Amino acid sequence: MDTATSPARLRLQAVRDALSREGLQALLVPSSDPHLSEYLPGRWQGREWLSGFTGSMGTLVVTHEQAALFADSRYWSQADLQLAGSGIDLVKVPNGALVHLTDWVTARLKAGDTLAVDGQVLGLATAQQLAATLAAAGVGLRTDLDLLTAVWPDRPTLPTEPVYAHRPPQAAVTRAAKLAQLREAMARHGASHHFVSTVDDIAWITNLRGADVDHNPVFLAHLLVGLDNAVLFTSPAKVPADLQADLAADGVTVSDYAEAPRALASLPSGAVLLVDPKRITHGLRQSVADGARVVEAINPSTLAKSRKTAEEAAFVRQAMVEDGVAMCRFYARFEAALARGERLTELTVDEWLTAERAQQPGFMGLSFPTIAGFNANGAMPHYRATADSHAAIEGQGLLLIDSGGQYLGGTTDITRVWPIGTPTDAQRRDYTLVLKGMVALSRTRFPRGTLSPMLDAIARAPLWEHGLDYGHGTGHGVGYFLNVHEGPQSISKAVPEATMAMEPGMITSNEPGLYRPGRWGVRIENLVLNVPVDTPEHGAFGEMLAFETLTLCPIDTRCLEPGLLRPDELDWLNAYHAVVRERLAPRLQGESLAWLQARTAPR
Amino acid sequence: MDTATSPARLRLQAVRDALSREGLQALLVPSSDPHLSEYLPGRWQGREWLSGFTGSMGTLVVTHEQAALFADSRYWSQADLQLAGSGIDLVKVPNGALVHLTDWVTARLKAGDTLAVDGQVLGLATAQQLAATLAAAGVGLRTDLDLLTAVWPDRPTLPTEPVYAHRPPQAAVTRAAKLAQLREAMARHGASHHFVSTVDDIAWITNLRGADVDHNPVFLAHLLVGLDNAVLFTSPAKVPADLQADLAADGVTVSDYAEAPRALASLPSGAVLLVDPKRITHGLRQSVADGARVVEAINPSTLAKSRKTAEEAAFVRQAMVEDGVAMCRFYARFEAALARGERLTELTVDEWLTAERAQQPGFMGLSFPTIAGFNANGAMPHYRATADSHAAIEGQGLLLIDSGGQYLGGTTDITRVWPIGTPTDAQRRDYTLVLKGMVALSRTRFPRGTLSPMLDAIARAPLWEHGLDYGHGTGHGVGYFLNVHEGPQSISKAVPEATMAMEPGMITSNEPGLYRPGRWGVRIENLVLNVPVDTPEHGAFGEMLAFETLTLCPIDTRCLEPGLLRPDELDWLNAYHAVVRERLAPRLQGESLAWLQARTAPR
Repeated sequence: MDTATSPARLRLQAVRDALSREGLQALLVPSSDPHLSEYLPGRWQGREWLSGFTGSMGTLVVTHEQAALFADSRYWSQADLQLAGSGIDLVKVPNGALVHLTDWVTARLKAGDTLAVDGQVLGLATAQQLAATLAAAGVGLRTDLDLLTAVWPDRPTLPTEPVYAHRPPQAAVTRAAKLAQLREAMARHGASHHFVSTVDDIAWITNLRGADVDHNPVFLAHLLVGLDNAVLFTSPAKVPADLQADLAADGVTVSDYAEAPRALASLPSGAVLLVDPKRITHGLRQSVADGARVVEAINPSTLAKSRKTAEEAAFVRQAMVEDGVAMCRFYARFEAALARGERLTELTVDEWLTAERAQQPGFMGLSFPTIAGFNANGAMPHYRATADSHAAIEGQGLLLIDSGGQYLGGTTDITRVWPIGTPTDAQRRDYTLVLKGMVALSRTRFPRGTLSPMLDAIARAPLWEHGLDYGHGTGHGVGYFLNVHEGPQSISKAVPEATMAMEPGMITSNEPGLYRPGRWGVRIENLVLNVPVDTPEHGAFGEMLAFETLTLCPIDTRCLEPGLLRPDELDWLNAYHAVVRERLAPRLQGESLAWLQARTAPR
Repeated sequence: MDTATSPARLRLQAVRDALSREGLQALLVPSSDPHLSEYLPGRWQGREWLSGFTGSMGTLVVTHEQAALFADSRYWSQADLQLAGSGIDLVKVPNGALVHLTDWVTARLKAGDTLAVDGQVLGLATAQQLAATLAAAGVGLRTDLDLLTAVWPDRPTLPTEPVYAHRPPQAAVTRAAKLAQLREAMARHGASHHFVSTVDDIAWITNLRGADVDHNPVFLAHLLVGLDNAVLFTSPAKVPADLQADLAADGVTVSDYAEAPRALASLPSGAVLLVDPKRITHGLRQSVADGARVVEAINPSTLAKSRKTAEEAAFVRQAMVEDGVAMCRFYARFEAALARGERLTELTVDEWLTAERAQQPGFMGLSFPTIAGFNANGAMPHYRATADSHAAIEGQGLLLIDSGGQYLGGTTDITRVWPIGTPTDAQRRDYTLVLKGMVALSRTRFPRGTLSPMLDAIARAPLWEHGLDYGHGTGHGVGYFLNVHEGPQSISKAVPEATMAMEPGMITSNEPGLYRPGRWGVRIENLVLNVPVDTPEHGAFGEMLAFETLTLCPIDTRCLEPGLLRPDELDWLNAYHAVVRERLAPRLQGESLAWLQARTAPR
């Protein structure tokens, strides 16, 4: 390709022309939308459209002379490839750090210059940080312009997928009960109104689901909750009449999506509005009527939905059986086909595994695109095989499969690594060390209220001992037939905050890994539930929690290096396999059942 | 005592009268001084004088109607006792939390009321937080009054102990080299001036020591460093003429202590002043000339002094031999006396152990008051035996001894627990679980730059497993012939900050514990040094650090419950004891040598 006419170069030129017209010196395009979602509807994938970089996170900054993409280590290999010829530099930064970006900007702009960013997609907390840092360097920040629409002729419109109800029995708490719970939290903050922009919070509060974002069963909306009623801002055409009637019975009316800013601007004088500065955009915050007082705190629903009820946990256990059955049937078929010498590729994994999940009761879709990476591809934590670029599963090595499903009774996310041919000693060693980290975290107990990041080192220590580490977090919160990534808890190097306290009912992934670029990757992932546990001290030193492992699927033992496992670690693995066998065997037959029995045999 | 005339009640009345005269509604008396030191000269122990509570940390708030002391769990038993009859309520708070205090104040004061606090002893960062929180409730903050002097007739004056030089070879880096290093850091911040209030930073920069604070070899001073010269604000009478001449040769002049605010007020227009908002008071920050620009960052010396040089580490290893010899000689004598049936008390421990340390070369004093707590007294982490109140060492139980020395070549801090009579199964179990935590942290490796709080869970996990925990941090930084507590690193539940990154040369304590109120306490503490370690990966996953254990003293094995120790943990203990024996045996004879050999015998 003639790089001078690459799409990215042409599009950046259009951006620069638009900057010139407005008298601006730089444009920042974050990976975000008006709901601060992790996965973006096409309309807000402007960073991808401009740069060609398809990673799920990354921020683009364009000045008249330069352009740079800021991305963390998960995306470096991918960004190197996709930015080639674009004229965009890759700036390698730690996950979530804003300081490198502002340093880059202030080194290139001079006092009096102005950076533009669309305030409608910029988080309030981020906007405050950005404005303060730029102001210290004399650089202005303009947030009232949407420059993308001007340069992006075929920018996608808003998605129009229908909204539907998440119904009992899986929706175990009624909408009315959730609204009452929310209003109790509002009362504790002295709030008369509460505005919610995060789509998973809205789906949880309203017991509604949608399909506006790939893999996340959510729909684009804002929600304004008052003391006696609530307004759901979405496309009324997406909400069937019977559902609108159900909502009305709970005091929820549906209004047009575009009306949200006007509703904030029309709040009565004396209103006290509760908003979450990490979960509302700068643009919407700017809309709030001057007469309203704003109280900032984490969305009560973000805390509430992280704590699954006993009924929800029971449905999740059932969903884990469905998901485990699909996994076993897939692997049995896949291994048999490999043994027969059939030609299989990374794409086959996605196709066959998705087909097995699709047969399970309550299955609603994948919870994220299947990652199937053989050898070197497994070393890229966010790899995705495509029709144009994928590997055949042949010869010798490690096959990493990270996948999950959305079920009416829960959301799953599981990673396993399987040997192809005979794994080498080095591969077995890496595999076993990752497993040790996963087992250590699975078995740990901890005081209720422990800030989740403080548990991160427990999973890493067995790897650190051998000079190894991994560049991603150890665990993320998981929704209930909702987003596969949800807060507030995070077992990672994130800066601990009080809102990250571990509480009973939270579901979190446990997924240490190890990546040897160009060679292979290992990651072993189960979902775990925070459960109260009695101890000989009966709470005298604080109420203790333990992890109940929810995920049900064999962990391959052919990759083990037994000399690296302590007896107590092997005991954990054998006990886990006994549970997997007991729960899945009644649902499997023939080749799948034989596969389960072989893969869960005690070691 | 007639509580109506208790000293605290009379003194609080004087405070309330002073508040009335000034038209104020509340006084806050923090545990702090103009240098934000942990241990305070008598002049700034106003909180103790007013309340009668002698704990090293705690904040007093006095309103016209009520008074409250805010203290963390280490002090609750002690405060309950010492506040009885004072009319002061104890408010139990987590360590370091300001929010409970401001909540208490804003619940009692109304909009328009004013709280006074002496800005000369209030940290800048704390002042900013306090002012913001109070302002949100409409409560004013007045910081320009020192109400204490008005109500405290015999308030102590400034200490007058002489200043002396820390000389080579133990002072391994010259003052000139340290000043040059400091000015390089100033240049990186674009600073023309740097103001330092923290007395350990000043002692380190200047290679001077003093005796103004018990157990910390520091002297009260501020330091203003310019590009070519520096001014040390202290009492010139405390600095001998030859030392003043030495200082002058390095461009450091001595000025009166009280001149510091005026020097800040006289900074030339255009000056760029580097200050550490956590290490300078609000009062001094207020003094800075309007024409000067202030840059805020951690004191460069705080980071630099935490990383001991190879020469310093070698002297510390030697100091650990001296300290270990004193410990062994003490224990041998103490156990023999107990066996002979002599009557010994907790005070005997302090007396005999201090006497042994005093005989060691380079010994300059204790690094903190010896904690010797038998049984129930050992369950109070900050217990101190007094002539009026101490226990006899007799019968059966656990004796906890936490002690340390200041040597010209380093600062020590060690805790051991020894059985008296035959320990019970429950005591052995507690002891062994604490040891498991200590061993786990001792053996861990971690990437350079890991934020120190992230290691905390590694020491706690073996206790958590059994429903146990402890209310203090796991490790604090330790100075080099300086304060036994120094930053920036902290292995604890502290909120991690970038400045807490683990770097080679840092010395930290490793001291998990377990406290059964009214029964016994266990704490086992070694000091450890961050050292680079090669691994089979040779840094491919990040440069790795390990802990070199510095402390040399047997860890009692009679208290062990062997069934709770894994073979690899016992291997660590045996290997540690082999090192202790090898390094200390050449320095011991007779009963002490026999004791060492018995106590380090392999298990």
